[in-house]
Amino acid sequence: MSLTIGVFDSGFGGLTVLRAILPRLEGKLAGTRCLYLGDTARLPYGSKSRETISRYAVSSVEFLQQQGADFLVIACNTASALALDDIRAASSVPVLGVIETGAAAVASISQTMSALVLGTAATIASHAYSSALSHLGLQATEKACPLLVPLVEEGWTDHPVTDEVVRIYLGEALASAKNAPDTLLLGCTHYPLLRQVFARHIPAGMKIVDSADATAARAAELLLPLLTASAPTVSSLTGVSLTAPSLDFYVTDSPTQFQQLGSRFLGRPIDDVTHVALPE
Amino acid sequence: MSLTIGVFDSGFGGLTVLRAILPRLEGKLAGTRCLYLGDTARLPYGSKSRETISRYAVSSVEFLQQQGADFLVIACNTASALALDDIRAASSVPVLGVIETGAAAVASISQTMSALVLGTAATIASHAYSSALSHLGLQATEKACPLLVPLVEEGWTDHPVTDEVVRIYLGEALASAKNAPDTLLLGCTHYPLLRQVFARHIPAGMKIVDSADATAARAAELLLPLLTASAPTVSSLTGVSLTAPSLDFYVTDSPTQFQQLGSRFLGRPIDDVTHVALPE
Repeated sequence: MSLTIGVFDSGFGGLTVLRAILPRLEGKLAGTRCLYLGDTARLPYGSKSRETISRYAVSSVEFLQQQGADFLVIACNTASALALDDIRAASSVPVLGVIETGAAAVASISQTMSALVLGTAATIASHAYSSALSHLGLQATEKACPLLVPLVEEGWTDHPVTDEVVRIYLGEALASAKNAPDTLLLGCTHYPLLRQVFARHIPAGMKIVDSADATAARAAELLLPLLTASAPTVSSLTGVSLTAPSLDFYVTDSPTQFQQLGSRFLGRPIDDVTHVALPE
Repeated sequence: MSLTIGVFDSGFGGLTVLRAILPRLEGKLAGTRCLYLGDTARLPYGSKSRETISRYAVSSVEFLQQQGADFLVIACNTASALALDDIRAASSVPVLGVIETGAAAVASISQTMSALVLGTAATIASHAYSSALSHLGLQATEKACPLLVPLVEEGWTDHPVTDEVVRIYLGEALASAKNAPDTLLLGCTHYPLLRQVFARHIPAGMKIVDSADATAARAAELLLPLLTASAPTVSSLTGVSLTAPSLDFYVTDSPTQFQQLGSRFLGRPIDDVTHVALPE
């Protein structure tokens, strides 16, 4: 089989999920494709209503399926939190969201069964992480952090102002925490770029779970058996690397802006980006 | 005549323009209506491309004209900067933008003929203020301040972090300034809420021009002669105030969110908000 993985985000943040997926696919089945769609004309989703987010997300995953995706990763926390049921209803292929995988990763390491969850206003207002953690027997203290995405996009990932904003947000979250949270869940795909800042301000012993990395690990867990079982032996081929997945990027706003900012999130240059118009 | 003024913004910021217009209309012609459209499902415009901003803005002003607007105020700096020609081409009524009025206000007070201009990434990248000021014989030093809108929307209008961010942005702008700017132009309708913060960090003697206030003043200048000339004498009527303009609010995302955040910008409660769907 050949596999096409569709990764969807409202903008750039989902590139941290794709970045975590790619190394897991290397050396596996030749011919694997990764499609990435950033709905950049309508970002950010984090401040919008459930109805609007759902409409945007469904039109986005329909596009990825039209392009041949046979496995969908909803790398946008906001869309996973508010529209995953609608997305699944509109999809004929398996759909993996960041909320459920992030929550499962927390459950696998928390000793106190209590976690802090940080995310955008809409993700937190949805209580989607709280609900997913509760199903796994964990308690969540949730905190909306609307300034962190703009700070990352300003490039202030290592900056005194960001340090202070993270200190304030974490302090407020800890002050309102029930029980003793021992795990910090980064519930937004921009936040991995601030991992070192979080590490400076969390209490000693607290662990950080990154929903982007957790989702990439889960996607690999689901897909690698398929890829390995049917993989041709490519080790005898020379001259070309058939085993690195091909990458196609689509955006609803300017490809140039996406290339510039996106490369920081992906950790490698982004060459070709195609502009697409999605139905409202 | 009865007059319907349509005020358009990508979200909330334009409410500072409406706020500045309203007192100027009170005591004038009875039956004046103000329509406000916030394209909140697609905000912010500030990080998007010219093509996308233009498409969104044109569909927005077409809606306001369908609702009867016979005078349009483009209260969004980004849309004024990037799409005013397209908006005028799509409009059959007079259109006033914040850029030209803000630039004219600077020209009327600057002695050194040099100004600092702060705005969103897209407004600054368009060099629209620089170009408008240049036509009036002034030099501009422009600086994109992408964190200020999120800080205002977080409610941190009087906060040490905002103080520090403004200090950094103004310091960078002044360090790169040509000549000796004596005027600071607030080129974003969110910035009036930070006026006190700017006042703390500008050099002694520098004046602040607020494009929201300048636009309201210019709209009044254009409209009041019409209203006063044809105004019925309402002073003899008692019991009802016929002279305060009626207000209708339209948004493309959640009316509830708009009511909550919008009231801070308008400086008075917002009662009824109607959700509308605009063509993509």
